[in-house]
Amino acid sequence: MKQRGGFSFLPIGIIRSPFKEKFGIPRQAGIVPDARGVLEILPPFRQEAAFRGLSEFSHVWILFLFHGNPRAEWKPTVRPPRLGGDRRLGVFATRSGFRPNPIGMSAVELTEIRAGGGKLHLHLKGIDLLDGTPVLDLKPYLPYADSIPAAQGGFAPEPPRTDLAVTFSDEAEAVCLRKEREIPHLRSLLVQMLRMDPRPAYYARRPKKKVFGFRLYDFDVQWTFLDDGIRILNLKEPA
Amino acid sequence: MKQRGGFSFLPIGIIRSPFKEKFGIPRQAGIVPDARGVLEILPPFRQEAAFRGLSEFSHVWILFLFHGNPRAEWKPTVRPPRLGGDRRLGVFATRSGFRPNPIGMSAVELTEIRAGGGKLHLHLKGIDLLDGTPVLDLKPYLPYADSIPAAQGGFAPEPPRTDLAVTFSDEAEAVCLRKEREIPHLRSLLVQMLRMDPRPAYYARRPKKKVFGFRLYDFDVQWTFLDDGIRILNLKEPA
Repeated sequence: MKQRGGFSFLPIGIIRSPFKEKFGIPRQAGIVPDARGVLEILPPFRQEAAFRGLSEFSHVWILFLFHGNPRAEWKPTVRPPRLGGDRRLGVFATRSGFRPNPIGMSAVELTEIRAGGGKLHLHLKGIDLLDGTPVLDLKPYLPYADSIPAAQGGFAPEPPRTDLAVTFSDEAEAVCLRKEREIPHLRSLLVQMLRMDPRPAYYARRPKKKVFGFRLYDFDVQWTFLDDGIRILNLKEPA
Repeated sequence: MKQRGGFSFLPIGIIRSPFKEKFGIPRQAGIVPDARGVLEILPPFRQEAAFRGLSEFSHVWILFLFHGNPRAEWKPTVRPPRLGGDRRLGVFATRSGFRPNPIGMSAVELTEIRAGGGKLHLHLKGIDLLDGTPVLDLKPYLPYADSIPAAQGGFAPEPPRTDLAVTFSDEAEAVCLRKEREIPHLRSLLVQMLRMDPRPAYYARRPKKKVFGFRLYDFDVQWTFLDDGIRILNLKEPA
């Protein structure tokens, strides 16, 4: 494991997630309950015995690798989006993925463990993970050690705002209805993501009409910011 | 960072801890508040700017490497001490250090950041870390994302027992008094560690008189289990 002064790890699994790009992704785990995903366990870890007893836990920690970061070098300070992007904080005072060892941690709900047919899938709720994220470890959440409700939260003591009104165009509403059997939580997922105002701070400060977009599942979601909240214009499906 | 199919990390720091061996060490973070230690940040991460804003947080996550594990190979199942050591659970259903990627995580209290003289030291409380533990990452504890009091805790829903009476021999009491200026919390640390009954399950089930010992700071702590609790016999100092 020790290697040229460093420590080397193999992924135990890969995340399958509706989030195909960073824009719009929840900024922490748990704040978008309908963000559902699957952790696919890879061999040689794909052994049911290694997960015996895990289903007794309601929540698990996912230790993952921040991947796809274009910048390889870390910098001592970063600009957290929660501070409007114009205040620099030390990288170790933030949960930014641009850190010396780009390991992330997310506490998520474990809803089901499915094993069989050569697969071992853990179904998760409340994820904040990109599709394809490599996972380094999985641990049970132990409330007596991990839950510290009285901890003082520094610059981010509260969850992001969730009070924005989110409305759907007739077209977007029709897509949600049509997909109801396949992705029953599609509509609530969109509301939970957008009511947090995922716009870059630059736009939030200088509101002007602009159509934003992100990929979610196979959709290209298009939305805009109106005076009374966010309006989802369209969910374009792949041609 | 990617290397022969794995991911490689450099330690950002090293833990200095009173715990010199595994026996007696708290089994999770936070349950022994007077377990005080220091995270010494290593170059090239030893830059004050990288920690700017961190002192606003009361608690931090330490991601560390379980080191000194004699067994290099992981096994799919382990015997958690909390279950008496005779029930096997999947390694991913436990917080055991004998895991495929031996990364541990501990939520601890951050009491002070001291910088100067070419050093950068983070003072911590409630640690469960061996002296010399390599640290891979440090993150602020975010209660809105990390604290889930209602999570169901599986086989370990409650902290370990803390109701054992701990008494001191006159000799042990005298050492605590003599060291009061240097290690003012020595007595309370011993009580907090021993009231959890750190005996191996084998002995707890078959009580018989035996003197146990562990190293704490520079002391060789000797104690025994009596009918009415644990008695600290001696704190031997190095010759």
